[in-house]
Amino acid sequence: MREYIHTVQYYETDKMQITHHSNYIRWMEEARVDFLDQMGWPFDKLEALGIVSPVLSVNCDYKLTTTFPEKISINVKIKEFKGVKLFLEYEMKNKDGKTVCIGTTGHAFLNSEGKPIRMKQDYPQLFDILTKAKEL
Amino acid sequence: MREYIHTVQYYETDKMQITHHSNYIRWMEEARVDFLDQMGWPFDKLEALGIVSPVLSVNCDYKLTTTFPEKISINVKIKEFKGVKLFLEYEMKNKDGKTVCIGTTGHAFLNSEGKPIRMKQDYPQLFDILTKAKEL
Amino acid sequence: MREYIHTVQYYETDKMQITHHSNYIRWMEEARVDFLDQMGWPFDKLEALGIVSPVLSVNCDYKLTTTFPEKISINVKIKEFKGVKLFLEYEMKNKDGKTVCIGTTGHAFLNSEGKPIRMKQDYPQLFDILTKAKEL
Amino acid sequence: MREYIHTVQYYETDKMQITHHSNYIRWMEEARVDFLDQMGWPFDKLEALGIVSPVLSVNCDYKLTTTFPEKISINVKIKEFKGVKLFLEYEMKNKDGKTVCIGTTGHAFLNSEGKPIRMKQDYPQLFDILTKAKEL
Repeated sequence: MREYIHTVQYYETDKMQITHHSNYIRWMEEARVDFLDQMGWPFDKLEALGIVSPVLSVNCDYKLTTTFPEKISINVKIKEFKGVKLFLEYEMKNKDGKTVCIGTTGHAFLNSEGKPIRMKQDYPQLFDILTKAKEL
Repeated sequence: MREYIHTVQYYETDKMQITHHSNYIRWMEEARVDFLDQMGWPFDKLEALGIVSPVLSVNCDYKLTTTFPEKISINVKIKEFKGVKLFLEYEMKNKDGKTVCIGTTGHAFLNSEGKPIRMKQDYPQLFDILTKAKEL
Repeated sequence: MREYIHTVQYYETDKMQITHHSNYIRWMEEARVDFLDQMGWPFDKLEALGIVSPVLSVNCDYKLTTTFPEKISINVKIKEFKGVKLFLEYEMKNKDGKTVCIGTTGHAFLNSEGKPIRMKQDYPQLFDILTKAKEL
Repeated sequence: MREYIHTVQYYETDKMQITHHSNYIRWMEEARVDFLDQMGWPFDKLEALGIVSPVLSVNCDYKLTTTFPEKISINVKIKEFKGVKLFLEYEMKNKDGKTVCIGTTGHAFLNSEGKPIRMKQDYPQLFDILTKAKEL
């Protein structure tokens, strides 16, 4: 999988002259969108199938500050997947290869009525791809 | 009409240590929501009637910088209204009463199919209240 | 301590028609600023003393969705404090009193050179107030 | 000059299921940063020289809605430059080549004391490059 690159924007900095911590949560979403794209299951395909994937939890450990206009590379991997909940881990590095932030997000997969989908039965391809990606 | 007060948040500042200019556009929305509330036509009432009111234009002239944790008072008034398009003007002041920003937004009123509503015929109460508010 | 109230803004919603999850991280900052204000140690007083308090970690568990224009009440309490690191917990409730989100943030206290301050010796008043607030 | 491409993010959409209008102001900043980079005068070079370039005004006319995950191309050009104030124009297009938004920003060039710089005398290279770029 190709890493996702986010360039820190001026509007993402704060008066400490560093990236405001809330933005890393948004970068995780950017990286997650790219990750699903690369796996062949882009957000809009999921939405077209009526699958909604809300965020259940986010966690972020800040290691080093970043600021405009640094380029941050984000590596996404599947931390846990058992068919109902998906946990993704994000490692963010600066251009020196130093880890600036480690994050985790938890997700459910719901149908349009808000009930958990039975992914293994109803979307076996998505189930397989997530299961295999986990093993990498 | 009561002025709307926005407290500048830490996350709204940037590395110049002042409020990032994009946030004033959001404060105009906050003040607009409050303005419609005070007139008895809150956003959710409009949406429940199937009226969509997209932003057609925004304009903002920055006079003085602001920063966390200043309290900014925003005075909204109707600049122009002729039944099809509504132009609102926003004067933002700091605690010393100095004008920090003057903004304008333009709005259309559309039905759920995206066509302009005939406000005078279909929503005479809203038409009247906007016409009268203009005259103040 | 008085609860902090945040009104969900239109610009905080996303295409799922609910509050985008990243905004809760910002609300925690708003509530934290208010919490320190109420304790008599506002951010600007800390900054004037040369104390910087970066965010080390954030955690957020989403329980129920919220959306514009709900009013969310946020209760902040000290989860852990031993003089070097401070952990705050945030319970966010909707108008029905249902918990919508539980968050935690971790903070360090650094001097202007980026080194941990010896709070007990150098700022005994702040140390005492945080220690006492913890016991509540 | 190469166009700047912005991919609309999920977190930039709102409950109308379109890009929230405030984000276009931020995209103009992204495109402006890229524009100055391409001219050989990146923001950090300006800041290193002690030149501050605050935004004096923004204007935005929304023509067509956009949404996640569209790719928007932004073409920046100099609308007006006479050594003291710089006005930039931004034309944003969707993948069909249709104009979605036209924006303008106004900028001053100040020294670290907040006084206008005499660009022609003090930074003739920057003055020349902006003057020539205007003629394109």
